[in-house]
Amino acid sequence: MSAPDLDLSQLRGRNLKAMTLPGPVTLYRGGVLPSVTIAYETWGQLNKQQDNGILLFTGLSPGAHAASAPADPSPGWWEYMVGPGKPLDTQRYYIICVNSLGGCFGSTGPSSINPLTGRAYGISFPAISMEDIASTAHGVVTALGVRRLSVVGASLGGMAALAYAILYGEQVQGLVSISAAAAANGFAIAMRSLQRELVTSDPEWQGGQYAADAGPALGMLLARKLGLLSYRATSDWDRRFGRQTLNDPPPPPVGGFGLEFQVQSYLDYNARKFVGQFDANSYLYLSRAMDLFNVADHGGTQAAGLARIGARRSLIMGVDSDILFPLEQQRDLALQLGRAGKATRFVAVNSQHGHDAFLVDEGQFVPAMTDFFAAAERQ
Amino acid sequence: MSAPDLDLSQLRGRNLKAMTLPGPVTLYRGGVLPSVTIAYETWGQLNKQQDNGILLFTGLSPGAHAASAPADPSPGWWEYMVGPGKPLDTQRYYIICVNSLGGCFGSTGPSSINPLTGRAYGISFPAISMEDIASTAHGVVTALGVRRLSVVGASLGGMAALAYAILYGEQVQGLVSISAAAAANGFAIAMRSLQRELVTSDPEWQGGQYAADAGPALGMLLARKLGLLSYRATSDWDRRFGRQTLNDPPPPPVGGFGLEFQVQSYLDYNARKFVGQFDANSYLYLSRAMDLFNVADHGGTQAAGLARIGARRSLIMGVDSDILFPLEQQRDLALQLGRAGKATRFVAVNSQHGHDAFLVDEGQFVPAMTDFFAAAERQ
Repeated sequence: MSAPDLDLSQLRGRNLKAMTLPGPVTLYRGGVLPSVTIAYETWGQLNKQQDNGILLFTGLSPGAHAASAPADPSPGWWEYMVGPGKPLDTQRYYIICVNSLGGCFGSTGPSSINPLTGRAYGISFPAISMEDIASTAHGVVTALGVRRLSVVGASLGGMAALAYAILYGEQVQGLVSISAAAAANGFAIAMRSLQRELVTSDPEWQGGQYAADAGPALGMLLARKLGLLSYRATSDWDRRFGRQTLNDPPPPPVGGFGLEFQVQSYLDYNARKFVGQFDANSYLYLSRAMDLFNVADHGGTQAAGLARIGARRSLIMGVDSDILFPLEQQRDLALQLGRAGKATRFVAVNSQHGHDAFLVDEGQFVPAMTDFFAAAERQ
Repeated sequence: MSAPDLDLSQLRGRNLKAMTLPGPVTLYRGGVLPSVTIAYETWGQLNKQQDNGILLFTGLSPGAHAASAPADPSPGWWEYMVGPGKPLDTQRYYIICVNSLGGCFGSTGPSSINPLTGRAYGISFPAISMEDIASTAHGVVTALGVRRLSVVGASLGGMAALAYAILYGEQVQGLVSISAAAAANGFAIAMRSLQRELVTSDPEWQGGQYAADAGPALGMLLARKLGLLSYRATSDWDRRFGRQTLNDPPPPPVGGFGLEFQVQSYLDYNARKFVGQFDANSYLYLSRAMDLFNVADHGGTQAAGLARIGARRSLIMGVDSDILFPLEQQRDLALQLGRAGKATRFVAVNSQHGHDAFLVDEGQFVPAMTDFFAAAERQ
């Protein structure tokens, strides 16, 4: 999808740009990509000091379209957060959101053509790490002339922001990591690795070498349903759907083993939207990158890793109903940052919306983010 | 598996017995089974008053072998609970554990031969309800001469115990329902219905009409993994397995998309044990029965349904880390029973073991159960 002749504006809107990084890229866990293109969007203007950057990393599934822009008025995935007068204020900051390396919305990933073979990488793509997502984004912001910036992200993006702040500590002024962790825990690894197994168990995955117009649609559908189940608080599913059925009385067994409850119908509808647009191998690579990430890889312990973070100020946020990245993980991250001498604010969000709260709980995330960036202004 | 010429002692040990109920059985949600066999085990002796019965229902997956017996010394699934001097004291009580109708360990279920066609029922088996599991167990205990009894169960068994106490209120002296609910909540329904979808998505399911020596092994493997994930507290997976990998450094992508983390290996090992011995259609029918159960079906509201329970005393237990049947559900059940005028004790178990705690937290379940049945003795 990152072939040079591709019209990115048709792919994901007219604000999307792409940049091919200079030279081959050696990846964190080994392997070399001969050429890397990163798709990105920007909002606002870089100032003369070149120090008003905000680099925004996405979660696993969205592309770089975080917010609407004059060139592309369609709403982005964090529309309430990015814009004039919003917490990530496009009148003050130069905001860059990247499509992660390994993704499928314009950046080089498993579905891209390997220039050495003329065919899609597929499973021959090297393992992706949060550090690679960070370093290729660093290539973009450097080329754009940004000298100093803050990094912001939630979920996968919150891990990528941590990786960036560790690798490029001298450049990072502020760090915001939301609903993420210094390393995934055992339950999250189990949930995500089972999703990957649902994909690779589909015969249409074909060992990762499916054709461009094919792929493990059923495996992706099932994996996405499981993913969606993990993104919300357990109580949220009951609050929204309870026991409501599509038919009353319940159908006989054959029908009963199809879609029977409204919660199933909701999951099916939303998972199907995802399957058509997300490359299965990208899903596998990015999902695994979350499981493999560990701040402790940088210096031997998490404390040593966090000590490398150069950001003067950090904001760590978590949600009390998140089952995937439990609140204790963010509290622990904030505590460790504090012990490492970093000025850190920890905000525990009380929400029914679980891991996905940052996408919907505007009323809770806006004040914390506004405070954080307003305080940065005063320094 | 319930054909009369089958040697049940070879199937699941020498203490297993089976009984064919008189006449055809009409099921709660419609449909008729021309012949129903229920497999069961017993421990202890029925007294002269025929009032010392304890009917024990199982969770979704175990058979009737709840505990060892002279005829079968192999440990049962609730070995710590059933035996001489144990809470379910075989020196005082006559204990009967049934393999649920719809199961595959000796009782009539989808894998049984339909006597009208000479072939396995498969998907033509009528829908199973908790009420059917209760009523066919009632047929067994009646034929065994039991006049009065207590009903005990956890998980699916805790729902079946509720159904039994509603349907046969006059016969039930005590009710123990553990880690169950008056009705499943939306998250539990979502988790279980996704498991069913993993089974039915396997082409080898063949619309439910797979051959006796075949079936959706892969779908069952994946479904069981998801089930196992839901049976433990989320924190338990981290405590036991954390981020431990099978290989360090991590393998390249192809290997990385196989079994990589120890938690995956654990799930795989345990799920494979299950797949070889559990019939896929039985899994579907029993799983769905849990989702469809609702005490409110008996009288229009849960309060009305619970008012039909004749048990003089009830013990409702739940576990604070259970994500499938959250503790609030058992608390609510106990509160409603109390409001209906039933003497009810509610015990909240503090445990890391989630939904499966009743299988392992002997130290917490033994005292509560001992107290409950000792108090019954004194009455």
